[in-house]
Amino acid sequence: MTTLTTIGYVAGSMTSLGFVPQIIKGFETKHMKDVALWQPLLLTVGMALWLIYGIMLKEMPMILANSFSMACNMIAIIQKLVYK
Amino acid sequence: MTTLTTIGYVAGSMTSLGFVPQIIKGFETKHMKDVALWQPLLLTVGMALWLIYGIMLKEMPMILANSFSMACNMIAIIQKLVYK
Repeated sequence: MTTLTTIGYVAGSMTSLGFVPQIIKGFETKHMKDVALWQPLLLTVGMALWLIYGIMLKEMPMILANSFSMACNMIAIIQKLVYK
Repeated sequence: MTTLTTIGYVAGSMTSLGFVPQIIKGFETKHMKDVALWQPLLLTVGMALWLIYGIMLKEMPMILANSFSMACNMIAIIQKLVYK
């Protein structure tokens, strides 16, 4: 594995993991009042585009990280709509 | 500008803008109780690595988007620590 790919996988793991604590916190507290709805909305659409960009560049770290993060942000949207 | 670069800039604009509403909301409410601290922490470190990755790939959309988003997440960390 090249240095570039390694950095990509470490970067992707961290930004992917970054979206998990908020989701866990949301499920635990069932309270999302301080969380801005626009954040997961814009990130979901933006990450769908980064995913296309990663596919065009044939960069697997970008493809995997953006797929996972996009799914996390979609869960956050649902939490925000359900828990408010 | 190629299709790839255009998609990259649109993707980068959306994910960058995605971090702004939370920061505005934080400044307005001065209340960050429902926001998980781990999110901006992990995203800041991860985006620093995506920035290096973008520099290695010489992909300007990745360089600009990750620089801006990293700065936004650093502000969110400070807000979370100050407002709690």
